[in-house]
Amino acid sequence: MLGVRCLLRSVRFCSSAPFPKHKPSAKLSVRDALGAQNASGERIKIQGWIRSVRSQKEVLFLHVNDGSSLESLQVVADSGLDSRELNFGSSVEVQGQLIKSPSKRQNVELKAEKIKVIGNCDAKDFPIKYKERHPLEYLRQYPHFRCRTNVLGSILRIRSEATAAIHSFFKDSGFVHIHTPIITSNDSEGAGELFQLEPSGKLKVPEENFFNVPAFLTVSGQLHLEVMSGAFTQVFTFGPTFRAENSQSRRHLAEFYMIEAEISFVDSLQDLMQWGADLRTEHEKYLVKHCGNIPVFVINYPLTLKPFYMRDNEDGPQHTVAAVDLLVPGVGELFGGGLREERYHFLEERLARSGLTEVYQWYLDLRRFGSVPHGGFGMGFERYLQCILGVDNIKDVIPFPRFPHSCLL
Amino acid sequence: MLGVRCLLRSVRFCSSAPFPKHKPSAKLSVRDALGAQNASGERIKIQGWIRSVRSQKEVLFLHVNDGSSLESLQVVADSGLDSRELNFGSSVEVQGQLIKSPSKRQNVELKAEKIKVIGNCDAKDFPIKYKERHPLEYLRQYPHFRCRTNVLGSILRIRSEATAAIHSFFKDSGFVHIHTPIITSNDSEGAGELFQLEPSGKLKVPEENFFNVPAFLTVSGQLHLEVMSGAFTQVFTFGPTFRAENSQSRRHLAEFYMIEAEISFVDSLQDLMQWGADLRTEHEKYLVKHCGNIPVFVINYPLTLKPFYMRDNEDGPQHTVAAVDLLVPGVGELFGGGLREERYHFLEERLARSGLTEVYQWYLDLRRFGSVPHGGFGMGFERYLQCILGVDNIKDVIPFPRFPHSCLL
Repeated sequence: MLGVRCLLRSVRFCSSAPFPKHKPSAKLSVRDALGAQNASGERIKIQGWIRSVRSQKEVLFLHVNDGSSLESLQVVADSGLDSRELNFGSSVEVQGQLIKSPSKRQNVELKAEKIKVIGNCDAKDFPIKYKERHPLEYLRQYPHFRCRTNVLGSILRIRSEATAAIHSFFKDSGFVHIHTPIITSNDSEGAGELFQLEPSGKLKVPEENFFNVPAFLTVSGQLHLEVMSGAFTQVFTFGPTFRAENSQSRRHLAEFYMIEAEISFVDSLQDLMQWGADLRTEHEKYLVKHCGNIPVFVINYPLTLKPFYMRDNEDGPQHTVAAVDLLVPGVGELFGGGLREERYHFLEERLARSGLTEVYQWYLDLRRFGSVPHGGFGMGFERYLQCILGVDNIKDVIPFPRFPHSCLL
Repeated sequence: MLGVRCLLRSVRFCSSAPFPKHKPSAKLSVRDALGAQNASGERIKIQGWIRSVRSQKEVLFLHVNDGSSLESLQVVADSGLDSRELNFGSSVEVQGQLIKSPSKRQNVELKAEKIKVIGNCDAKDFPIKYKERHPLEYLRQYPHFRCRTNVLGSILRIRSEATAAIHSFFKDSGFVHIHTPIITSNDSEGAGELFQLEPSGKLKVPEENFFNVPAFLTVSGQLHLEVMSGAFTQVFTFGPTFRAENSQSRRHLAEFYMIEAEISFVDSLQDLMQWGADLRTEHEKYLVKHCGNIPVFVINYPLTLKPFYMRDNEDGPQHTVAAVDLLVPGVGELFGGGLREERYHFLEERLARSGLTEVYQWYLDLRRFGSVPHGGFGMGFERYLQCILGVDNIKDVIPFPRFPHSCLL
């Protein structure tokens, strides 16, 4: 009845190994070709996109890049191999011999024997122009092409490396990784405007909730991490968080990534009194400048300024909580954290005062059964990238930025 | 004006190192204590939760677990250290000497000198009962406590290890990691019901979109990965995806994780004709059973059954596309992939026929500027965990399951 053929085999395109069909030329990534030691005429094949074309009387020079590194591989060909389709942006497959380059500009080059254009690129309509240095603002209009530029290509490769490094760091430090939920029924953490969601067909009848309760996109994985720190002691998450705020600043996104960690059995923050108003952007800038344009930790905020879960320092009559923020030059708040209120009666009273006891009964329960002092922090990943790379606008360190009035692709 | 004290110092709770305050006892995780070679009475301190209590006339035995491993550390104490608060589930700090255990059941044990109860646990109200093996269904009611059981604790530790291994695997294979967007304006991929979102205050006036266009939660990162494979050749993502489907099955969630990869310059899938209806659960089960309860690849589906981006095999009059699914015993479809239509005119015609040309102009543009043959796949992470762990219900391999009528915490 079913005429389907069953196959048990490895799927060839899952493998990054060279395709055996095209022997004798071994397929190499540009990075591997560039890194070849003692190149002496081995027949290889590379595939990539043309980054530059220079045609001389008898010789044709191409630079081919496949995204495996910032650098391109120089291809040298007889001008007889030239064609109208060898344009900036076209994809090509080049076969030839990998040789030591006579020039000092590069170690190796590919002496082409065969150049095949795979996909042409119409230079006239292509928004990325040959030899032009486009402003980042211009490139933002083309999220599907800007990754092919040197600057975005480099930023996104570094973002990828940083992602891997963060996972390794926490793993090596004995943390358990937790996928905290993206959809949550918590709506009252006070971290700003929330996105609410429903199945697209039902958006206009919000009384019929898909999950029986109103559901929102997470603003933080902290409360869920606290659950897990009560089982694994050291936990972290690294995932997307959301704010429905109408901000067009160069430091805000509606969708951004946070690294959050939560640790049980932690000691108290040092007791250091301070007092003042909540910090606004200009205060943050002032503080950082005041301290000599270096990263600044601010600790022990007034209780009334911070959410209900922050640990009371019991330093009344004007209470502070054991909260800490890290302000850095250029991006402002990079990192926020603190000790959580682990004492049942303290938390119960704070929740009752805010009318949240019922909603957060589960959170209160964590303090009834084997509660421990614990604390943690969250760091905005995009702001971290801005900080280490010196990138002015947060929209340029994330592949597909989402902000008010803009959701391209 | 601002009375805030500035501090430049490392935040102590960021570190997993022992706190120097509590010398001379070195703080060890249970895992490190258990792994100690040649224990000979070193003074240490451990912190964790009591997993068992056995009180004899003169000796008290505790098992203490901190989530760093499945195993607990045996604590042996003089019965004088016993107290009413040493209950199953209570959190404790134990100081003493780590010694070689006289019993063959464990290598080491902690000869307690001091036991401090940090947080009591009222056994009467605690939903996890001492020495009881709770059914997984029962535990699902308590997402904030089930992680403290052996079974969920083990599953979540394995989930964490698998997450790290997946990141390492792709990194070592030369793939660039991409955070594909969670919020997207694509609504017509045909992958089932979507969640739509708006700021919670504005949900009832959907004509005023926050992003100017209707916005949805992603069902797949594939199209965005295709953008990136045109710059980096080999890319992957590992993030949450969503379906607003009213399914209560043991294989479906409204929020689940996918590993997706996309690779440029890939060869064609082997040309193998088949023909038939789309596969339903019972067909999938039949096929897997028919092949001897082993994983089965099904390739080359009828064109009309698969989305517009699948590559036409040009095997008319009844076209197939170069799509592949992997069916595995127990969970059904684990993996789906295929070659993408990289040819401009083929894709243009498919989009026009579906009335999608305008919405997917950017996707079509990828085929105008340096297009290359490419393909990729997606694997459901929770189904993968079900598969390798033999867990029957998908709700038990994710920390906080979301499904119709349920969004706990």
